Amino acid sequence: MAGNSIGQLFRLTTFGESHGPAIGGVLDGCPAGLKLDTAQIQSMLDRRKPGQSNLTTQRNEADRVELLSGLFEGVTTGHPIGLLIRNTNQKPKDYQDIARLYRPGHADYTYQHKYGLRDHRGGGRSSARETAVRVAAGAIAMQLLATEGIAIHACVEQIGEHKSSMPMNRINWRAVQANPLFFPDEDRIPAITKAIENARRDGDSLGAQILLVATGMPIGLGEPVFDRLEADLGKAMLSINASKAVSFGAGFDSVTQRGSQHRDAITPQGFTSNHSGGVLGGISTGQDLVLRVAFKPTSSITTPGDTLDLDGNPVKVVTRGRHDPCVGIRATPIVEAMAALVLVDHWLRNRTSRA
Amino acid sequence: MAGNSIGQLFRLTTFGESHGPAIGGVLDGCPAGLKLDTAQIQSMLDRRKPGQSNLTTQRNEADRVELLSGLFEGVTTGHPIGLLIRNTNQKPKDYQDIARLYRPGHADYTYQHKYGLRDHRGGGRSSARETAVRVAAGAIAMQLLATEGIAIHACVEQIGEHKSSMPMNRINWRAVQANPLFFPDEDRIPAITKAIENARRDGDSLGAQILLVATGMPIGLGEPVFDRLEADLGKAMLSINASKAVSFGAGFDSVTQRGSQHRDAITPQGFTSNHSGGVLGGISTGQDLVLRVAFKPTSSITTPGDTLDLDGNPVKVVTRGRHDPCVGIRATPIVEAMAALVLVDHWLRNRTSRA
Amino acid sequence: MAGNSIGQLFRLTTFGESHGPAIGGVLDGCPAGLKLDTAQIQSMLDRRKPGQSNLTTQRNEADRVELLSGLFEGVTTGHPIGLLIRNTNQKPKDYQDIARLYRPGHADYTYQHKYGLRDHRGGGRSSARETAVRVAAGAIAMQLLATEGIAIHACVEQIGEHKSSMPMNRINWRAVQANPLFFPDEDRIPAITKAIENARRDGDSLGAQILLVATGMPIGLGEPVFDRLEADLGKAMLSINASKAVSFGAGFDSVTQRGSQHRDAITPQGFTSNHSGGVLGGISTGQDLVLRVAFKPTSSITTPGDTLDLDGNPVKVVTRGRHDPCVGIRATPIVEAMAALVLVDHWLRNRTSRA
Amino acid sequence: MAGNSIGQLFRLTTFGESHGPAIGGVLDGCPAGLKLDTAQIQSMLDRRKPGQSNLTTQRNEADRVELLSGLFEGVTTGHPIGLLIRNTNQKPKDYQDIARLYRPGHADYTYQHKYGLRDHRGGGRSSARETAVRVAAGAIAMQLLATEGIAIHACVEQIGEHKSSMPMNRINWRAVQANPLFFPDEDRIPAITKAIENARRDGDSLGAQILLVATGMPIGLGEPVFDRLEADLGKAMLSINASKAVSFGAGFDSVTQRGSQHRDAITPQGFTSNHSGGVLGGISTGQDLVLRVAFKPTSSITTPGDTLDLDGNPVKVVTRGRHDPCVGIRATPIVEAMAALVLVDHWLRNRTSRA
Repeated sequence: MAGNSIGQLFRLTTFGESHGPAIGGVLDGCPAGLKLDTAQIQSMLDRRKPGQSNLTTQRNEADRVELLSGLFEGVTTGHPIGLLIRNTNQKPKDYQDIARLYRPGHADYTYQHKYGLRDHRGGGRSSARETAVRVAAGAIAMQLLATEGIAIHACVEQIGEHKSSMPMNRINWRAVQANPLFFPDEDRIPAITKAIENARRDGDSLGAQILLVATGMPIGLGEPVFDRLEADLGKAMLSINASKAVSFGAGFDSVTQRGSQHRDAITPQGFTSNHSGGVLGGISTGQDLVLRVAFKPTSSITTPGDTLDLDGNPVKVVTRGRHDPCVGIRATPIVEAMAALVLVDHWLRNRTSRA
Repeated sequence: MAGNSIGQLFRLTTFGESHGPAIGGVLDGCPAGLKLDTAQIQSMLDRRKPGQSNLTTQRNEADRVELLSGLFEGVTTGHPIGLLIRNTNQKPKDYQDIARLYRPGHADYTYQHKYGLRDHRGGGRSSARETAVRVAAGAIAMQLLATEGIAIHACVEQIGEHKSSMPMNRINWRAVQANPLFFPDEDRIPAITKAIENARRDGDSLGAQILLVATGMPIGLGEPVFDRLEADLGKAMLSINASKAVSFGAGFDSVTQRGSQHRDAITPQGFTSNHSGGVLGGISTGQDLVLRVAFKPTSSITTPGDTLDLDGNPVKVVTRGRHDPCVGIRATPIVEAMAALVLVDHWLRNRTSRA
Repeated sequence: MAGNSIGQLFRLTTFGESHGPAIGGVLDGCPAGLKLDTAQIQSMLDRRKPGQSNLTTQRNEADRVELLSGLFEGVTTGHPIGLLIRNTNQKPKDYQDIARLYRPGHADYTYQHKYGLRDHRGGGRSSARETAVRVAAGAIAMQLLATEGIAIHACVEQIGEHKSSMPMNRINWRAVQANPLFFPDEDRIPAITKAIENARRDGDSLGAQILLVATGMPIGLGEPVFDRLEADLGKAMLSINASKAVSFGAGFDSVTQRGSQHRDAITPQGFTSNHSGGVLGGISTGQDLVLRVAFKPTSSITTPGDTLDLDGNPVKVVTRGRHDPCVGIRATPIVEAMAALVLVDHWLRNRTSRA
Repeated sequence: MAGNSIGQLFRLTTFGESHGPAIGGVLDGCPAGLKLDTAQIQSMLDRRKPGQSNLTTQRNEADRVELLSGLFEGVTTGHPIGLLIRNTNQKPKDYQDIARLYRPGHADYTYQHKYGLRDHRGGGRSSARETAVRVAAGAIAMQLLATEGIAIHACVEQIGEHKSSMPMNRINWRAVQANPLFFPDEDRIPAITKAIENARRDGDSLGAQILLVATGMPIGLGEPVFDRLEADLGKAMLSINASKAVSFGAGFDSVTQRGSQHRDAITPQGFTSNHSGGVLGGISTGQDLVLRVAFKPTSSITTPGDTLDLDGNPVKVVTRGRHDPCVGIRATPIVEAMAALVLVDHWLRNRTSRA
């Protein structure tokens, strides 16, 4: 109820602050009998990890996840899986400047007013570091989905003004995973890299848009009315730090479509288009699931900004620390993880649809 | 768990199909001591009601809501409020044609595969008629919010290619409520009316975009991490039939913003802009809450469409019945209702943030 | 969250007060494809109905349940089932005496202090009338369980000092259902009837103990740790008005047992005893489920009692109205209904235990 | 949903097996601003710890709890508190004998059938070791309750045939905490100690009954209908390993009471008796909360027992390992912890009862 859990039958609860002893969580509802590939979990965590290139933050977080329970001889037992990641590379001194002021565009202001106090170090609970636990849990979810033939892929479709022109069905997902920007058009990576470096040099940051595609979808995932698949996926995406919008299929473009154009015809060979994004009436159609998420440019920049201190006096703030100039890039595996968590939840829920 | 409830502390559960005896619901968690204005509830229901103009469906649904419980001498008692709306104007014959085929763009296909059977009459549970119960519950929520000085307003910001050019702070919400299109720019209503009539004449339909603004917001609504205010509002919006996307503040435009531009400066006089849409770190800032929802053009059109029958044979379908050419218009009070339900839920949740 | 729902995957939410227009509820999560026997639902409601003999209250409530949704051509659709029972035989005048005082042993005192107001007519939400909705929903649950071969039976094992001496395996459940006391030892019914009449004549009331046995149980229902089968069943039983205790298998007698005596040996022919009551580690063993519930003697008696009025002045209260001298008797079908609701919930939950 | 969480607004989720790397949990919903006494948490854990006397198990578990998050400078922040207790003193070899058979009276049989596999070492998830996390979380709950003047005390009221004759209002709770049996009648401790030693010598075990009393209760905790205070407390108690029954106030004795005797008169000086156990209509009356829990004699005894191996062959089992001859004794702080968790949950829930 305090908002640190997601999912109904497959439920992740997380805890931990950026500069406390550890972050972690509990994944409850993982069915028994899955042979777990722990290397894959670590590998997915590594994709999220900062410090991989000079385009992302220079923090060198180890992000070693420890699985504390729910496994016996490498197989899930049906019991909750405890997840633990120690915090090892904190530099709380970087944050002493902000102990008594509100960084604009951050949770400082709202946390302080809501709770009457806050752990200012690294943003405390509002730190993107919390998402590492989501990625670890999402990796387990992806292994469950793989047993059903469902695969989840995300890429960065746009960074600032640079928008991919790659058709969705021609994206090479393996190549996307290998490049540090998770961008589909390899030839444009040098230009985008330059743009990000320029933003950093300017003491500024860039927004990004993530595209997620799930293939191998069965028909029937999602519940009518309030827990429609888009509703639960949308919530999951909007729970990621810095996300500002989410769309399915034609998304906002459906506003200017006509009904005869938007509705996807059904033929013996399947649907002839996918404006719906793979969901009708809140339930998966078996087509690819297609969604997009917008990430704002981070407010952690070195350009001075106007704000207040705790006493209400106007001050200028410069966010030093170690920060990504484009947080959307690292959001890619997080978007995948959140989608995987929601799909497993609905896959389990769908087991109860018939008597 | 089967998806017919929304909210944690203020929780609406709905039931009912378009052509069954009634629709209704239970609103649980309404605090005791609210003097309820039942006329306002009916009035909000009337705004959603079809048949008000020739731009919306010609069904003449009475939509009389009966409050069955939870009130004593006109005041809420803290006990659940039972809501009942009898179905009175059904014409199931209109739907016999579609008993054995899947209307493209509808839930027919997914319901049939998920459950192995479906109530095809009027779409059954997938009918937009279900949203009448949400509007009745939302009206109660709005009365609770009013006691806190929070007001919720929505308008149709775009219909097809027709986009409002009215600045947000100049919208006359009272006038918006009075016009049948809920469109802010009164001088453009004749042209848009014409466009909708043309779409209907063409056997086609139009999409729409709704803007919602909540004023008088307190600081502190929303929970960190998974139940961020955007996450819960986003889910609520994406649970509305025909919605395809939701955005907050700058939304997808934040992709092309720079951090120095997006972050809203804080001064002794307040925030100097509202790119965040009134939420930071998942928690309300006290600024106006600003969100937008995209509604697809309805698939219930008279232009023949390709689809399959239950046996998998290709057939053409023409959706007769009585249908809005632009379902997004009537979504306006539904968007308001869903926002109100979420805000009351978080208003109650926020009472537990401090010891 | 306000406490008017029970169950996770099979979830009943109820509403309604004794003297409002109606009571009712929503049963969400009923799987699709069950051919529903509506006569059986009404028949189970009739068992709970007062006014059947002079041993129970003289109110003549019709208790006609209307199924408002979730059915198509007599078969469940997977969508929520709306339940409605109109209140038809209210005599609010009977309750005017108690509008401004707290009946001892009733919810009057706690409701008034919790909510600041209360619907005093017939106890409002605290009326046992609310349980009629549970019985209707429980009847649906029992039909689902029957498809799995699970049968649920309850009887009154003790009324006041009169305790059944019938061994559990010799109870004739059909005969129990037919007698107005639901008591297994037919030869003792005249004596107990006399005792109840005496209690009523004395302006007093009797307590009762209910025994519930579920046969045909599968292995595997119940979740470890917090949602053990006993925990969820225990909660369901203790949610019934006037219940004060619940026990499983040997129950409180296990305090004086030795481990060598209590533990049920397992042999190729099955368990050799059932001190566990059919549950080990919170999960059903396949043996009969055995539980007992204690019901206090009702406080609605004509013997004057000491209490306070709303202003804190001492007054005497005599509860007139129409009341059972032994409310435990009518609790029998309610205990069955609550057990059925819990078992269906865990039957559905158990579908997700393996990958 | 997989049953490893309890509470709505104040919610504990636990993980961990007896012989895995660690047990732990997440306590979500702890309000901000509580100055936490960590020594008190450890002290309450120490009360539950085995190996304190020769009457309880000889395992020497360190049970050092680490608080991983949710605290800043010793004060709760409103964010989830991560709890971790490393397993340090495992002797898995003790359990190799039971890898391929079902100990009678244990979860072995049901876990194996439910999940298709099990971690047999020390009972895995069914080990009472899991309750250490509950005690740590309960200690935090007790600190919150203390700020409201609510105190929780439990004692062992009966061990086997030895029943305390101490009137409830004369129990010296401080003395109870100090004695290794948590028994109120100090003069009888030698005799009971002897009885327990005899049981152990006989290769057998004893049951126990715990009495819990909460003082300083406010009026208004508990929700009507399904989440009555007894229902939620009853569930919490029945979720403890080896519990078989729970009662409130007069409990099963209310079956033989008359209404004129059971109902507690209300006078200007307060209630004149407490047969209700401090709850009316599911809501606390302000009187002391009184409940009792029965704990079965453990099945982990050295007397050989009949059972089956995984292949269905009959075998004899002798449970060696290190086990308490009376597990009910150590349940005392667990009963306190579970009561505290439920009361805090309802204390927070009650903040939303009025508009």
